[in-house]
Amino acid sequence: MSRLLQDVVGEFSKLPGVGRRTALRLAMHLLRMDRESVAEMTQSIDRFRNEVKYCTRCNNLSDEEVCPICADPERDHTTICVVEQVVDVLSIENTHQYRGLYHVLGGVISPMQGISPSDLKIDLLCERIEAGGVREVILAISTSVEGETTLFYLMNRLRHYPDLKITAIARGIGFGDELEYVDELTIAQALRNRREIE
Amino acid sequence: MSRLLQDVVGEFSKLPGVGRRTALRLAMHLLRMDRESVAEMTQSIDRFRNEVKYCTRCNNLSDEEVCPICADPERDHTTICVVEQVVDVLSIENTHQYRGLYHVLGGVISPMQGISPSDLKIDLLCERIEAGGVREVILAISTSVEGETTLFYLMNRLRHYPDLKITAIARGIGFGDELEYVDELTIAQALRNRREIE
Repeated sequence: MSRLLQDVVGEFSKLPGVGRRTALRLAMHLLRMDRESVAEMTQSIDRFRNEVKYCTRCNNLSDEEVCPICADPERDHTTICVVEQVVDVLSIENTHQYRGLYHVLGGVISPMQGISPSDLKIDLLCERIEAGGVREVILAISTSVEGETTLFYLMNRLRHYPDLKITAIARGIGFGDELEYVDELTIAQALRNRREIE
Repeated sequence: MSRLLQDVVGEFSKLPGVGRRTALRLAMHLLRMDRESVAEMTQSIDRFRNEVKYCTRCNNLSDEEVCPICADPERDHTTICVVEQVVDVLSIENTHQYRGLYHVLGGVISPMQGISPSDLKIDLLCERIEAGGVREVILAISTSVEGETTLFYLMNRLRHYPDLKITAIARGIGFGDELEYVDELTIAQALRNRREIE
């Protein structure tokens, strides 16, 4: 096999979810793209990797020191939604239902993977709260074991701010989910969190 | 969303089989890779797209004017296996059952897609045969409608060489299957069971 082909297949194979066969197909696709398009793609990858920053306030990906959400005076600066990762911000933004700010932890506490609270942007969150003006922190952390650990840790840290309202996104049955296939823990929690229908 | 992130997600989304969600996951993976690894990847992509050649004899991908298979004196230069595309050469090589040469057509005849015989490397194949020394041509074309058309066309062209044995790989491959996706055992058996075309 051509060494150049071998190299590019090897590089593609390092990407998550890309096996040798997919890597080969991607390489063959490159030959059908014109050279300018391939150059644009690789430049875009390099630029992203080398130039993207983390917002100094919320730790979201940003082109500037402060991301457009934190810099937007139209958003509600009294509410911070705490999420694990950057893609969670995108998921919530796609709902068009939330007008507050975010705080990206950069992961969850996981002793198994050696991720301790100090590896997450928790101190930065506390600094933001201490700077004043924040009335509510919404914890939008996933329901994994690590997620629950992180939630518990955050609740303990945030309890020390007397006037701060701490909320967590509702646990319940997802839209379109069939009860038959939902796990017992979720059903139990959804039952406990039941609300009166007006 | 960060413009840099938006750009790279857009570029990844252009790749076959990559949707927006996968593109996002790939972008996030780039941030976990160190900068040197990302640079190596993009350099490998650029180098492949700009430097890879097609073997002037068999039309296979090659780093040099003549590919390592055509240049190998240990291979059987009296036998040429004709395939549609580069990945088919890799599939056959992976069986370790074939020691002859190849000829990559670069596609199949497809009036629907506007691919006529002159768009394929058929003249180059005839030149190789006319240069002498070739005793057998194995047609390893897939069993699609376009493949059968191409097979028929090739048989008509190659019939004019009186001493040339023309064979086709055995029909052990299911109708509609593409060689690229067939397992090595089936390909190996289909090669062994090739039969002379009367």
